Amino acid sequence: MRRILLLSASYLVAASAFAAAPSAPPPQDEKAIEKNFDAAIDPNQMRDWLKTLAAEPNHVGSPHDKANAEFILGLFKKFGWDAHIESFNVLYPTPVSETVELQGLKPFKATLQEPNIPGDTTSRSKQPSLPAYLEYQGDGDVTAPLVYVNYGMRDDYKALARLGVDVKGKIVIARYGGGWRGLKPLLAQMHGAVGCLIYSDPSDDGYAVDAAYPNGPARPPHGFQRGSVEDMPIYTGDPLTPGVGATVNAKRLDRSKAPVLLKIPALPISYADAQVLLSSMDGRVVPESWRGRLPITYRVGPSKAPVHLMVKSDWSMKPIYDVVAIMKGATYPDQWVVRGNHHDGWVYGGSDPLSGQIALLEEAKAMGELARHGWRPRRTIVYTSWDGEEPGLLGSTEWAETHGADLKKKAILYINSDSNARGFFGAAGNHDFEHFVNQVANDVTDPETQVSIGQRHRAKARIDAAEPKSHDPEAVDRLKAEAKIAADPHRDFPLDALGSGSDYSAFLEHLGVPALNIEFGDEGNSGGVYHSRYDTFEHHSRFVDPGFVYDALLAKTVGRLVLRAADSDLPLQQAGDFADTLARYYGEVKKLANDKREAAEIQGKLVSDRAFQLTADPTKTSGPPLALKPVPKFELAPLENALDRLKKSAKAYDDAFAKNAAKLAPDRRARLLGLMQSIDQTLAPDNVGLPGGRGWYKNLVYAPGRFTGYGAKTLPGVREAIEDERWDDANKYAKLTADALNAYSARLDQATAVLNGK
Amino acid sequence: MRRILLLSASYLVAASAFAAAPSAPPPQDEKAIEKNFDAAIDPNQMRDWLKTLAAEPNHVGSPHDKANAEFILGLFKKFGWDAHIESFNVLYPTPVSETVELQGLKPFKATLQEPNIPGDTTSRSKQPSLPAYLEYQGDGDVTAPLVYVNYGMRDDYKALARLGVDVKGKIVIARYGGGWRGLKPLLAQMHGAVGCLIYSDPSDDGYAVDAAYPNGPARPPHGFQRGSVEDMPIYTGDPLTPGVGATVNAKRLDRSKAPVLLKIPALPISYADAQVLLSSMDGRVVPESWRGRLPITYRVGPSKAPVHLMVKSDWSMKPIYDVVAIMKGATYPDQWVVRGNHHDGWVYGGSDPLSGQIALLEEAKAMGELARHGWRPRRTIVYTSWDGEEPGLLGSTEWAETHGADLKKKAILYINSDSNARGFFGAAGNHDFEHFVNQVANDVTDPETQVSIGQRHRAKARIDAAEPKSHDPEAVDRLKAEAKIAADPHRDFPLDALGSGSDYSAFLEHLGVPALNIEFGDEGNSGGVYHSRYDTFEHHSRFVDPGFVYDALLAKTVGRLVLRAADSDLPLQQAGDFADTLARYYGEVKKLANDKREAAEIQGKLVSDRAFQLTADPTKTSGPPLALKPVPKFELAPLENALDRLKKSAKAYDDAFAKNAAKLAPDRRARLLGLMQSIDQTLAPDNVGLPGGRGWYKNLVYAPGRFTGYGAKTLPGVREAIEDERWDDANKYAKLTADALNAYSARLDQATAVLNGK
Repeated sequence: MRRILLLSASYLVAASAFAAAPSAPPPQDEKAIEKNFDAAIDPNQMRDWLKTLAAEPNHVGSPHDKANAEFILGLFKKFGWDAHIESFNVLYPTPVSETVELQGLKPFKATLQEPNIPGDTTSRSKQPSLPAYLEYQGDGDVTAPLVYVNYGMRDDYKALARLGVDVKGKIVIARYGGGWRGLKPLLAQMHGAVGCLIYSDPSDDGYAVDAAYPNGPARPPHGFQRGSVEDMPIYTGDPLTPGVGATVNAKRLDRSKAPVLLKIPALPISYADAQVLLSSMDGRVVPESWRGRLPITYRVGPSKAPVHLMVKSDWSMKPIYDVVAIMKGATYPDQWVVRGNHHDGWVYGGSDPLSGQIALLEEAKAMGELARHGWRPRRTIVYTSWDGEEPGLLGSTEWAETHGADLKKKAILYINSDSNARGFFGAAGNHDFEHFVNQVANDVTDPETQVSIGQRHRAKARIDAAEPKSHDPEAVDRLKAEAKIAADPHRDFPLDALGSGSDYSAFLEHLGVPALNIEFGDEGNSGGVYHSRYDTFEHHSRFVDPGFVYDALLAKTVGRLVLRAADSDLPLQQAGDFADTLARYYGEVKKLANDKREAAEIQGKLVSDRAFQLTADPTKTSGPPLALKPVPKFELAPLENALDRLKKSAKAYDDAFAKNAAKLAPDRRARLLGLMQSIDQTLAPDNVGLPGGRGWYKNLVYAPGRFTGYGAKTLPGVREAIEDERWDDANKYAKLTADALNAYSARLDQATAVLNGK
Repeated sequence: MRRILLLSASYLVAASAFAAAPSAPPPQDEKAIEKNFDAAIDPNQMRDWLKTLAAEPNHVGSPHDKANAEFILGLFKKFGWDAHIESFNVLYPTPVSETVELQGLKPFKATLQEPNIPGDTTSRSKQPSLPAYLEYQGDGDVTAPLVYVNYGMRDDYKALARLGVDVKGKIVIARYGGGWRGLKPLLAQMHGAVGCLIYSDPSDDGYAVDAAYPNGPARPPHGFQRGSVEDMPIYTGDPLTPGVGATVNAKRLDRSKAPVLLKIPALPISYADAQVLLSSMDGRVVPESWRGRLPITYRVGPSKAPVHLMVKSDWSMKPIYDVVAIMKGATYPDQWVVRGNHHDGWVYGGSDPLSGQIALLEEAKAMGELARHGWRPRRTIVYTSWDGEEPGLLGSTEWAETHGADLKKKAILYINSDSNARGFFGAAGNHDFEHFVNQVANDVTDPETQVSIGQRHRAKARIDAAEPKSHDPEAVDRLKAEAKIAADPHRDFPLDALGSGSDYSAFLEHLGVPALNIEFGDEGNSGGVYHSRYDTFEHHSRFVDPGFVYDALLAKTVGRLVLRAADSDLPLQQAGDFADTLARYYGEVKKLANDKREAAEIQGKLVSDRAFQLTADPTKTSGPPLALKPVPKFELAPLENALDRLKKSAKAYDDAFAKNAAKLAPDRRARLLGLMQSIDQTLAPDNVGLPGGRGWYKNLVYAPGRFTGYGAKTLPGVREAIEDERWDDANKYAKLTADALNAYSARLDQATAVLNGK
């Protein structure tokens, strides 16, 4: 607390000094700049902003969402940035009426509003908040028996087949977790269900995890998780304007043609209500891993009585408000470092997204301070405060699509944040930026342990592997591989790969612009109030980041990334990390193919020996497994050759960089920067895109999984083709991915030549 | 049902025929004998016996326990057997008074009696049943805070160290499961706890698993699990007479010197009561895998208020009543086939043990029938109905110790059963009897699928590996290895290894007499009423084996094993299965050593890099892990050589047997039988025994684990030394185990010479 107060005092001095005239000499070097930057970061200021921003519900279309955009705009201007609001018109349904009721002898109606929490004074809004709702569900009025589908993911439908249960014509009830929300109603629909309920099991974020709010951080019995169920693995952003900005005059799809809209009605419910519905189930007791922690016997169903589910929405267009603030670069004004965090929440948005938003604002404030003292970034810095992230990354996608050509030409990096919490440094992004992130992480001190956040992150990677929380062999293998790297001080610790779930998607996956996502977490707990009315200022300050220590640390960390990216005279990429990581990912893909081949062979023998019938309990429903296709050998040679080449090109580049970069003549340096500025876009060729209607996703190295939603799939064209038994696509995308990697290597080779004076 | 009635009718015909005179010609061959045997098996008769035997509480010392012994004696005599009761005097404490209460502002007293269940007419005894009690706990009166220790196994204490929690001076509360009950208070005591409560979490056998009794088979809220906590991994049987029979004049240890008695008080409680105690806990939320399914936040403790635990017992001696019935062999009267199942329960004992007991009785009845029709076994058959199994395998151990010399000379095989249920064939025992068991399993038809129980068992082994319920890598590896064997029709499907938990222990592990344990199960569910007042006739008939179909199948299966063992002209062993299995077990031991070595190395580096401190959350208690000793290279060459030799000797024996056994001259056959009769005893040399005070356990291939209790540890001298970081023992027992295996091989070589006419 003392240190924080001191920092705050120094900021006040600096601010008042500026109010008169910039008397102190401008800072000359990175260290001095960053010291001054840190000195301006003030947790108390961040706390005050959070209180203001989270004072009323701020979902898209709410008065406070617009007010927040204007408040943020005012701040940017006050900090000295060239700021404006850029608005888009998006399809954004809002609920008109909705019902979830169990019929039969003991009828029951679910509560679709979250009650006030007595212990939380900041949760009592004057303005209305959204009731239980899933953005872009399908509207409808259906009555059918209920079937429990666990997390409602693909593996769960495989298990359902073995349990002899079909969801056709049924309403499914899935619990949150195990994969992205939006896949639950989508997979239900694909399997013939007519409706979908999603509830938060206490096992996953309720009383099993910690005391329920307000006694602790976990989800209270009547809390529920709103969220988007737009089919974002097809494309993100406004459902009616894929690939183009949702400006007033944009050409729009007819709503009935938008492929990302769900066709069946879906609603979230609380665990208090889910308990009543789940208690009404007949049928088999579910497998161990399907059991939540309600005090009931979980059965697969169908329910004894039918459930009535009705959702009716107002499907009109609504405006969204992105705030964009620019600080022009002194040396390379046409090279942009873009930084973003959204400002819209589901209700108050205390942790999600405003904990990240206040860090972004504090960074902008501190950079404004630096600028007032004479500093100018070499590159142009663009700060963005997105609207409409929650319904489907609307603000960032529409902006990126609107300015796509400019961004591809100018953006060298997009740095994102979102929710933040006390704990460990987490970073994900393009792996040629791994070294860049590591350098920053080595220079930021963790307030709890007084070592660098990089060192603490390495320790965590190693402990996670030594004490894995899950025995899932794939997860354990990855943890071990990463721990081995993290344990080696001569290597950079690994970045995670980006999937989706926040505003980097359009940059990285549609445009190919490299992106980073930065957060702290794992000690503070905001999971229990995620997307509920209880994600408030009080919850955040009590349980997620008391003292705003890690929110301030996020500002310091991301601030450094932005400052160094803006001021560096040399490219930020290191190619060796990228080549090594891809080799690791390719190893996973090869193992996947072998494991699938073995599983299909084993299953074939089990079927021909009638093993499934012979082990079935005749007193229970059961069925054979979904048949696995025999797995051929794949044509992976092009990809292997490309990886070999990449490894060689990367080493040559990194060696040349180490030897010659510092002493490069200005013209060569400019050529080098020009080559490297857009090298990551070679991974996302314009004319390819992912198969299966996912052509919006151009990046052939990083993508969200078709059936993970948020979770990343690296080398997605090949990996997902094998997972999904599309054998021709596997061969085709091995070649296409190889082409992209070869383009990357070719660009590297050009850069190496420049470095080597050729 | 129809088939059963027909069989029953044929039995009545046969019985009445015998009442006059044996007019039918004696059956001549195995097939005919077994057909007649099957025809005599009558599920209705078994049902009637179960109703009688389970009519009143039948724990040791109860009037109905003695009445049951006399009833069983009467039946054996009626069936024509030479039967008697053999009695022993054992230390058998019974509760005088006991208390579990939570003190503090909201005091609470646990209910230590199970209420009647309205839906079960057979659970209303006139005679008193045991209250909540753990046999051979330590008596005491302690008041201390409570700490939750999950399953209370060794890994849990390792996790406790990481949570920064010490149980010294505390009372621990453990949930049932994860390892043998008796280890929970023992490990608590070893870690300095002053008392131990054990409760049945609904996650493990309550409402999470199925509807609670009487609506379903699972444990009702006020049910609890009694049981023994004698330290049986030291020795089984009467605590005062290790190694010798507890006859009236046996030399006895002073009670204070008996190493198998617990020193701290311990009691079982219900989950309804545990919920109150666990809700009173402070401290860290427990790790995910520690969470049960009560609707609370599980915390490690200590509890806010202290708990008062008091147990006072009457430590007097009590008589137990083994029933022994003999049918003398016609050809080899001094070669015994021994068959046993206990008759004492904890309350009514419907499934445990009486479902197995009625099978044993039905076998004896059917053999009596065969005998009345002129059949005489070649070998002597000894049927035993044990008393006092529940408190510590008392009846079987004392009998085996009393008749140890005779048994070592004469017993060729002990065949055990215990609880039984609807479902899959399960067999465990010496692996040189694997082929023998496979042959029987191929000849018995499963009533649900109409394939052989062997074929259904193979299907299950393969499905279990293809759809593993746990991701534990060790378990998965074993399942896969066994599935591979089970999938090969040219190989015998694997037997499980015997650990402990039923009456085979003294035979196999103290005397070295080979043993088999046979059961059906996995479809019927008796787990929820295990050792409770609700394990009744009605529960068994409704949920465990409706129609007594699988209890009858147990009689047919074990009957065949007994008949074939008694009548075979040749040794039953096949050596190849044994050699292969030991090679597999040795592979596990080597992997264990490597895994431990790697884990110790990783931990050492994590410690020196302060990774544990750096990842600790400063707002929560935590501590460093228990330090692992660096793992040296072990002197395993003698064991490897012995296994190589065994493999060669086994192949030579099996080849010679296949080629020459059928045509062997009578004198050679007699020599062969003589050599093979006691070959399995070479694995249990008299002068060695396991280390660590476990010298009673002589078998160097099969033992219950010191810290698994029931679970088997194969090659225990070596395996457990590595697990427990006793490096010198590992080297020493590699040599001693090698000696035993060499003795086995030497005996095999002699037998091979006889087979080859040398």
